[in-house]
Amino acid sequence: MIKISFPDGAVREYAPGTSSMEIAKSISEGLARKLLAATVNGQVWDLNRPITTDAAVKFLTWDDKDAKTTFWHSTAHLMAEAIEKKFPGVKFWVGPPVDNGFYYDIDLGGRHISEEDLRELEVSMAALAKENNPYIRKEISKADAIAYFTEKGDEYKLDLLQNLEDGNITFYTQGGFTDLCRGPHIPSTGAIKAVKLTNIAGAYWKGDEKNKQLTRIYGVSFPSQKELDEYLQLLEEAKKRDHRKLGKELSIYTMDDDVGPGLIMWMPNGTIIIEELEKLAKETEEAAGYHRVVTPHIAKESMYLTSGHLPYYADSMYPPMELDGEKYYLKSMNCPHHHKIFAAEPKSYRDLPYRIAEYGTVYRYEQSGELFGLMRVRCLHMNDAHIYCSKEQFAAEFRAVNEMYLKYFKIFGIDKYQMRLSLHSADKLGKKYVDQPALWKETEDMVRQVLIDTNTPFVEVQDEAAFYGPKIDVQIFSVIGREFTLATNQVDFSQGRSFKLQYTTPENHSETPLIIHRAPLGTHERFIGFLLEHYAGKLPVWLAPQQVRILPISDKFVGYAEEVKAKLRAAGVRVGIDDRSEKIGKKIRETELLKVPYMLVVGEKEMAEGKISVRRQGKGDIGAQPVEDFITVIKREIANRHDEV
Amino acid sequence: MIKISFPDGAVREYAPGTSSMEIAKSISEGLARKLLAATVNGQVWDLNRPITTDAAVKFLTWDDKDAKTTFWHSTAHLMAEAIEKKFPGVKFWVGPPVDNGFYYDIDLGGRHISEEDLRELEVSMAALAKENNPYIRKEISKADAIAYFTEKGDEYKLDLLQNLEDGNITFYTQGGFTDLCRGPHIPSTGAIKAVKLTNIAGAYWKGDEKNKQLTRIYGVSFPSQKELDEYLQLLEEAKKRDHRKLGKELSIYTMDDDVGPGLIMWMPNGTIIIEELEKLAKETEEAAGYHRVVTPHIAKESMYLTSGHLPYYADSMYPPMELDGEKYYLKSMNCPHHHKIFAAEPKSYRDLPYRIAEYGTVYRYEQSGELFGLMRVRCLHMNDAHIYCSKEQFAAEFRAVNEMYLKYFKIFGIDKYQMRLSLHSADKLGKKYVDQPALWKETEDMVRQVLIDTNTPFVEVQDEAAFYGPKIDVQIFSVIGREFTLATNQVDFSQGRSFKLQYTTPENHSETPLIIHRAPLGTHERFIGFLLEHYAGKLPVWLAPQQVRILPISDKFVGYAEEVKAKLRAAGVRVGIDDRSEKIGKKIRETELLKVPYMLVVGEKEMAEGKISVRRQGKGDIGAQPVEDFITVIKREIANRHDEV
Repeated sequence: MIKISFPDGAVREYAPGTSSMEIAKSISEGLARKLLAATVNGQVWDLNRPITTDAAVKFLTWDDKDAKTTFWHSTAHLMAEAIEKKFPGVKFWVGPPVDNGFYYDIDLGGRHISEEDLRELEVSMAALAKENNPYIRKEISKADAIAYFTEKGDEYKLDLLQNLEDGNITFYTQGGFTDLCRGPHIPSTGAIKAVKLTNIAGAYWKGDEKNKQLTRIYGVSFPSQKELDEYLQLLEEAKKRDHRKLGKELSIYTMDDDVGPGLIMWMPNGTIIIEELEKLAKETEEAAGYHRVVTPHIAKESMYLTSGHLPYYADSMYPPMELDGEKYYLKSMNCPHHHKIFAAEPKSYRDLPYRIAEYGTVYRYEQSGELFGLMRVRCLHMNDAHIYCSKEQFAAEFRAVNEMYLKYFKIFGIDKYQMRLSLHSADKLGKKYVDQPALWKETEDMVRQVLIDTNTPFVEVQDEAAFYGPKIDVQIFSVIGREFTLATNQVDFSQGRSFKLQYTTPENHSETPLIIHRAPLGTHERFIGFLLEHYAGKLPVWLAPQQVRILPISDKFVGYAEEVKAKLRAAGVRVGIDDRSEKIGKKIRETELLKVPYMLVVGEKEMAEGKISVRRQGKGDIGAQPVEDFITVIKREIANRHDEV
Repeated sequence: MIKISFPDGAVREYAPGTSSMEIAKSISEGLARKLLAATVNGQVWDLNRPITTDAAVKFLTWDDKDAKTTFWHSTAHLMAEAIEKKFPGVKFWVGPPVDNGFYYDIDLGGRHISEEDLRELEVSMAALAKENNPYIRKEISKADAIAYFTEKGDEYKLDLLQNLEDGNITFYTQGGFTDLCRGPHIPSTGAIKAVKLTNIAGAYWKGDEKNKQLTRIYGVSFPSQKELDEYLQLLEEAKKRDHRKLGKELSIYTMDDDVGPGLIMWMPNGTIIIEELEKLAKETEEAAGYHRVVTPHIAKESMYLTSGHLPYYADSMYPPMELDGEKYYLKSMNCPHHHKIFAAEPKSYRDLPYRIAEYGTVYRYEQSGELFGLMRVRCLHMNDAHIYCSKEQFAAEFRAVNEMYLKYFKIFGIDKYQMRLSLHSADKLGKKYVDQPALWKETEDMVRQVLIDTNTPFVEVQDEAAFYGPKIDVQIFSVIGREFTLATNQVDFSQGRSFKLQYTTPENHSETPLIIHRAPLGTHERFIGFLLEHYAGKLPVWLAPQQVRILPISDKFVGYAEEVKAKLRAAGVRVGIDDRSEKIGKKIRETELLKVPYMLVVGEKEMAEGKISVRRQGKGDIGAQPVEDFITVIKREIANRHDEV
């Protein structure tokens, strides 16, 4: 018998050769029906693959990322089957799953494929899926595999086979289609209830533009039509909320070829948002006992050798500048500079916890292909701080940081979030992670304990820690459900030692502080990108670059508009006047497009009564009111950072 | 007869060979007595040197920088005379004037010189000065000069002679001392009424540490004992006010070898000052219609080729970083990034003047020998802005900027300042300055006219413009009279063209805007350095990092101190408590040293009456008062940025 252990710690015995599916059925038929794959000792396996030794098994349903990936990969095979049926003789290169779906690169032998073809393929795939053909895994010798594809005349698969070792080669077959594939796959095609082929693109074979261009067909699939519909609706909504589109329409930021890729220039409107966010952070941090510091953007190589950024983080840094025989680097993190400030004056236990904050600007190298609007950039303004504390103070400080996240989430209406506890990987000690196995264990246990003690829901992920210690990454979800990795809260047992940071204990000993690295608002770049999508550009009043625009019905009322403007300005409201000689309808339409929260229409009646007619963005006319009443409400909205109307 | 013209435009005729001294006497004996030298066609000459052709003559008195330089150089000769008398056989290398005095490098032939020797030399110099020996200039052939120093056995002067051309060699003799010297000198030693030899240092011959070490003696001299006394007092005061000393004592900033020279790290106290200054600038600029922007610290080489920073400004920039086949530079100025923001969206006359401001951080390369505390650094936070305007708007905008300076000067109690209009130099067009002679003339005239129209006192200086246009440098003087070049207001007719910046006129033409570059508060580094000296570290309440410190007389009153603290914090006051179990006297002494403006002593009586005993920094006890009364006053002091107590 083999011993199968489960995530909850249970262990059961089974005959050798039992599959995960059989195990699941032995527990519950209902459970088994929902499964798409399983992990066996951490690797994703076909549900029907026999397990021959003791193993840890975890069942995967649609809610698991690995199950989705498997599902989409299986759909790529299904698409290939439909394509081969429609266009016999086509040849296939690779067909992997991607972030949201799958693609397959195909040599159509000179054929052209149209949108109409895609629709037909969708129908054909639905029919093939209904056949509920199993995905059958077969181990095959290299010689047999070569013979198969030689006979089929597919030079692409033969090319792939060259790099595979005998004994590690598998075929997968479903219905009439067989592919060279390492798997895993879902049990059978019947689970694929809804398919959308989304896009046709050209792709050079092996990404080399000297090679032949293949046809890449993208698609996505779901276990129900409802989920596909929701996904398509989300895509539509996401397109409207695309932060790059909104960033341009609302004059938030710009980029320029002469400045360089990934280097955001914040225009006046974006800068207002930045300053409001910084104000919020400064208030919050001041109340929480942080000091602020300002540090330069460069430092000598020696600093980054001490910190370990060189070599651990070298790939993500800009190359050095050589000056006076020294190498200077643009900083990719603020921590080393902050450590130097901690070390600048002797510290005692009375100075701890010593919390220093800076909206520091750091530079990180990202491949130009990875750059994406505000989400992936090379210059980041980070809501950074470092807390130097004793071991005894650690739990309270770490908890306080987590609570600060929740406070912010409330302000921004972020209801859905997840904390990921990122741990090191023992086999990468000394390479990706500092080589201190005992300290890793101790610190990871401390962090886990804080999360457990505070009833914070979290998941654990291996091999995603910072090089100096474990961290909590916070993933937040926008109102349309898109996921953003925003912020981190990290604990560092290593750099305090590297920088020889010390404080004197009450007993007059020297101790090295623990260091918490934290950035609850992440970076301006990513957070503002998130906010634009989250609010669809309709920022709450306190964040809106222009909060009020006054629209005189005709030139006659510009004078009164100026009076109202002066009152609003005196109350600290960001206000403008549309004093063009345009029709009021046009003024309203254009101001709506700019997503200004309030429009105040002023004409004969308003002027006579000392009133304004208020229009709220997206809600239309909400009636006339005295200027003073309006000021009372908007001042409160701004002060509370909370829209009332 | 030769024609002599004077700065006021007058022209007089004299016999050829008349000296400036004779010309001065022909005008006024009183004038002649005050003179130390003259410029003849822009070059400083001995007063007694005969003028043989038509020339422009300007008389120099002690108030002219060139006269001081000449005076100190002559004193160096006087010191050499005294040294040679005291130590026969010593040999002299060079003895130039410096910023505040002079030095001479001497080979004492193994002798040691003591502080006591300096005092004796001062006495000897005073006696020699009283002899009122004239400085006699003599043109001499190279052969005769070599013969003289060969006989004297002075290999140093022989070395100097090697590099001099026959026909250009002069000796100067006063009393018993003759030196190889190109001059100029004052007429006679009698003008030197007060001498102080300040320092003895070692200096390698020709600055090469492989050579012999010479003895360098520094000194300074004045035309009256009173001026020397004032100078020594200033030195003493300046030492106390040294921003490097205060910066350390008050925990304002720190530097670190691993970060690099000239790279300031602002500690929490310094950051508070920075944030108060930025708040002032933002308020002022917002009221003046500026928008704020945020730009990255790097850009591609192509941007700086467009702007002309490369090549005009290349020596002052950090070297490039090579990335993805492109060169990236750290920005040394913010302007090119701002131009890109101007260009990011189409502009019309309705958008002008378009004013964008940023406390931008720039990086400039200064030789490490030039670096000095906060005054000469490599990373600068600049109170920068750029105003894009039409020619018609220029005068009003330029004037508004000058008025902004005056507003700031008033806040900081800067009573003495000077505006310097820095112009280009025609012979450096195409090298140091963009090659647009007509635009230089037009723009310089425009700027001069604004200064004249606003009755602003100014001086004109040649060859100190920015490469893209003329500028006004503002020199301010601290309360102890030291001079700081703080801020600039520049007009730029060139970069608008280079960057193809355009706006649409009301007539629908495209025009290039003029650009004003301005930085009224200069950089945080230099301005805070200035403020520390100006206020001797006793910053006004609104700027003080900690505004109030509460000192409980004993532990019993810490609770009451906390109550008072909470009230002050709620009123926006930066407040701390010295809750150590120390004697009140010690607490007061230590808080005085930290230059906290207000100390609030609380004990039995204060607690019983709900009062505090207020001590004002430097003024001592100013009496007990209710907490609320104190809050009213300090809130007003902070809001008005003006100390009342």
